[in-house]
Amino acid sequence: MLLIKNIGLLQTSVGTGCARGIAQRENLKLRNAAILIERGKISEITSDGVLPACPRGIAELDAKGLLVTPGLVDSHTHLVFGGWRQHEVQLKLKGASYLEILRAGGGILDTVRKTRAATEEELYNKSLRFLDEMLALGVTSVEAKSGYGLDLETELKQLRVLKALNQDHKVDIVSTFMGAHAVADEYAGNGNAYIDFVCETVLPAVCEQGLASCCDVFCEDSVFNVEQSRKVLNCAKEHGLKLKIHADEIHAIGGAELAGEVGAISAEHLIATEEAGMAALAKAGTVAVLLPQTSFYLAKQYAKAKRMIELGIPVALASDFNPGSCPSLNLQFAVNLGYLGYGLQPEEILTAVTRNAAYAIGLDKSVGTLEKGKQADIVIWDAPDFEMLCYRFGSNQVHSVIKKGEIVV
Amino acid sequence: MLLIKNIGLLQTSVGTGCARGIAQRENLKLRNAAILIERGKISEITSDGVLPACPRGIAELDAKGLLVTPGLVDSHTHLVFGGWRQHEVQLKLKGASYLEILRAGGGILDTVRKTRAATEEELYNKSLRFLDEMLALGVTSVEAKSGYGLDLETELKQLRVLKALNQDHKVDIVSTFMGAHAVADEYAGNGNAYIDFVCETVLPAVCEQGLASCCDVFCEDSVFNVEQSRKVLNCAKEHGLKLKIHADEIHAIGGAELAGEVGAISAEHLIATEEAGMAALAKAGTVAVLLPQTSFYLAKQYAKAKRMIELGIPVALASDFNPGSCPSLNLQFAVNLGYLGYGLQPEEILTAVTRNAAYAIGLDKSVGTLEKGKQADIVIWDAPDFEMLCYRFGSNQVHSVIKKGEIVV
Repeated sequence: MLLIKNIGLLQTSVGTGCARGIAQRENLKLRNAAILIERGKISEITSDGVLPACPRGIAELDAKGLLVTPGLVDSHTHLVFGGWRQHEVQLKLKGASYLEILRAGGGILDTVRKTRAATEEELYNKSLRFLDEMLALGVTSVEAKSGYGLDLETELKQLRVLKALNQDHKVDIVSTFMGAHAVADEYAGNGNAYIDFVCETVLPAVCEQGLASCCDVFCEDSVFNVEQSRKVLNCAKEHGLKLKIHADEIHAIGGAELAGEVGAISAEHLIATEEAGMAALAKAGTVAVLLPQTSFYLAKQYAKAKRMIELGIPVALASDFNPGSCPSLNLQFAVNLGYLGYGLQPEEILTAVTRNAAYAIGLDKSVGTLEKGKQADIVIWDAPDFEMLCYRFGSNQVHSVIKKGEIVV
Repeated sequence: MLLIKNIGLLQTSVGTGCARGIAQRENLKLRNAAILIERGKISEITSDGVLPACPRGIAELDAKGLLVTPGLVDSHTHLVFGGWRQHEVQLKLKGASYLEILRAGGGILDTVRKTRAATEEELYNKSLRFLDEMLALGVTSVEAKSGYGLDLETELKQLRVLKALNQDHKVDIVSTFMGAHAVADEYAGNGNAYIDFVCETVLPAVCEQGLASCCDVFCEDSVFNVEQSRKVLNCAKEHGLKLKIHADEIHAIGGAELAGEVGAISAEHLIATEEAGMAALAKAGTVAVLLPQTSFYLAKQYAKAKRMIELGIPVALASDFNPGSCPSLNLQFAVNLGYLGYGLQPEEILTAVTRNAAYAIGLDKSVGTLEKGKQADIVIWDAPDFEMLCYRFGSNQVHSVIKKGEIVV
């Protein structure tokens, strides 16, 4: 048992499932609050100076009048990869675009070569350090995708690394199979054959070994078209996986509409999505997982987050941590960009990095809000209010992190 | 004595004074290098696996094949202030501009009220934590301005805090008097009278007590016009201070030209500066201290850094840390924006946060480069090259910091 007392402001969305429309802005705010934790779960929340009834002498943590929120949930990362791509700095300074670097055999295929070459242990140790840093930044649950193998062996290797990390590390990890992240070199010019390979060989092996709960596909000009993406997602659906889609990151070729059609739990990026795509997402209740640091890093426009919320689309914000388009794992900076880039209200941003993110990765029943019965994943911030987290940038504002009732940072 | 060995890449600008034009891009790069430090200064640098001759048994630090650069120099901060201004998040989401908030009695005047109300000890303790964080981020020298007092007592209080911090903290601090940061409430509508007060009362007291080596003024529409700014700077020149000017941050009203006219060592912001202003800076050799995080935070355009370098203006990058227009003290993020926002070459960026920054605050004879005889202010980065620092963002990439020959981080 642990009692967190002297919480200046407890702020959280409330409920399971996702929050849509005006509900995205509805945060419970309790002053002078306390949280009682038993066996890793929240057993009581009180406010206005009242303390929960609890045995004398239990462990106490003084929140010093600071802000407390749910642990952050990063619902879109490419956590496991070999190497880095800082040499692209010079290419980009010369004006090369993302797709130009990709077509020239660089970009993601460079990371694929390095990920194939890395041992399982090397990938494990590298990713473990990333998880340590994420936890120190207040992130208690993470989604992570494969997709830097593009062959059977390496896709399974990435997912095994994630499984081991999930067992060993405090942070909870949800694994997504993303064999359809790019066309493997071996299938250059023959995307259909690669899709067949993914559907007939890799996906069944992943599912047989129980290595993923979600499946994602990169639906984009020069990557996989709508028909190819549909094939992968329908195949994954038959295997019982939750569906995700990288949609409309650069060009709106129909990815958002496909997300609605197949009943995807989330569509991700959505930078180029227009009204028709948004209508499909709103109708289906698909979560828009927006990735503001990628817009920042690629100097692209920002997704129309305010419009999406207005249309009733549940919005989540995630890091997109990867070595190409977003070499940052700092979800606090996504909070800053939720304010600076999207113009969202602080309450909408909090819901986007907690409850809606948890829903997007199938964890909403256990995490993403502070409520009786939920897992005690909690951050105490070195800040008096969530506005401070939107406003200050470049400093880690975490004071303490509690994961499943245990003080871990 | 300390021997830093096994340096994978030692990268530094070379020379005292500033680097202009093509020289801003000239970095010395040594592979497999070592640095010998004696009595806080660099006594020898070797490369290609050769070690300096030194007594057996001296202290050694293994740089593990990583990148080593000079300690970073933050040449523009407003380090000492009361309170924060996160409540402006809501105002800005409603569309209020910086000058609108200022005209409504908010903005800087809000910080002035809080700084006047804070005790010297409160300000000292708050700023001390900022310096700890800066040092952990690789910053070993900092410029800091007064200007949140706008009365005799509080301007002196801010500068006394800086003096005490400089004595007590590892980071070296250069103090700048900036009484002409805004018109004090007591002089509302009478900027000329306030300027007289600054020149006749505050500046002489500051100089008599030896509390500043530089003087700065905010030359801007609705703040101080060119004539008022000239008066302050000429007065400071008579007192023997180095001259700085906040010029063309929002509107180009002639601040850059004034910097050239009075022989300012630096002109800062320069977001709106056009060709005429740049010509004046180039002719005078005035350092352009650019503040990319402020452009980022205010969603403004970025200063024309590449054009400035092309014209032979020495360019420095600094944080502008302050509670209004840039609530970030992270100079590593300024490095990212040097690449992403300005499109500068990595070598130009390194010179901008080390040698040119040191020159802009009068420290170029002792810090800003790695050379025999210079102060041993050194950062070992958890990175193989400086491209990595431009590319990864949101993570502190410092491995170790050496200040005056002592391992402090």
